Amino acid sequence: MIIRRMHEVEQRAVDMDGVRGVRMRLLVGRGDGAPTFSMREFTVEPGGHTPHHAHNYEHEVLILEGTGEADSEGGPRPIAAGDVLFVPANERHQFRNTGSGDLRFVCLVPAHFDCGEGGWRPTPGS
Amino acid sequence: MIIRRMHEVEQRAVDMDGVRGVRMRLLVGRGDGAPTFSMREFTVEPGGHTPHHAHNYEHEVLILEGTGEADSEGGPRPIAAGDVLFVPANERHQFRNTGSGDLRFVCLVPAHFDCGEGGWRPTPGS
Repeated sequence: MIIRRMHEVEQRAVDMDGVRGVRMRLLVGRGDGAPTFSMREFTVEPGGHTPHHAHNYEHEVLILEGTGEADSEGGPRPIAAGDVLFVPANERHQFRNTGSGDLRFVCLVPAHFDCGEGGWRPTPGS
Repeated sequence: MIIRRMHEVEQRAVDMDGVRGVRMRLLVGRGDGAPTFSMREFTVEPGGHTPHHAHNYEHEVLILEGTGEADSEGGPRPIAAGDVLFVPANERHQFRNTGSGDLRFVCLVPAHFDCGEGGWRPTPGS
């Protein structure tokens, strides 16, 4: 069994197109031997956002702190600490911090996804 | 995209051998179309505990509130809000609330596991 203090896990800036003010911790991932899915923590600073994109794998999200908006195919929807989100594969989405403090959430992804090139690949950030 | 307030999700008592004072919410599961893994919230009352057991699939856990102990193969270890746990498949484990308030955590499981009978089955509680 692995037990970690979340705040002691290394935090890295997320350097992707369409990202502003986002840092990530890989809490449990493939490198730990997790075979099926990975847990990451994201911290979005006020005014920051994740990319507005879609991909061929799902997200499961739990908002830990702060307030913001989730852009889905139906338009923007408010999110706040204590909310749980399921983003199906191939649905465009973005998470934006509209509050005055950090927006912090865990976002889980499968460890592998079908990349459409005849096989399965490790999911980015897993 | 599904967005839920965690506290609005129906909470049920967990009725299993070896369980004391545990309630569960299925936050995201197979019924939502989640193909790979499921997110559940558990609330363990003071003095309560989950079963001391092992199974052929992993757990990923994030402690949201409270303090307790996790029994692993190496003996009991303290757990508290902000801790992240990875329990590999087939490792015996138990989570106990040793504090004076609720112990609350999310525990994620794969949607299916190899039951050893020639196939894959839906994971209990997913």
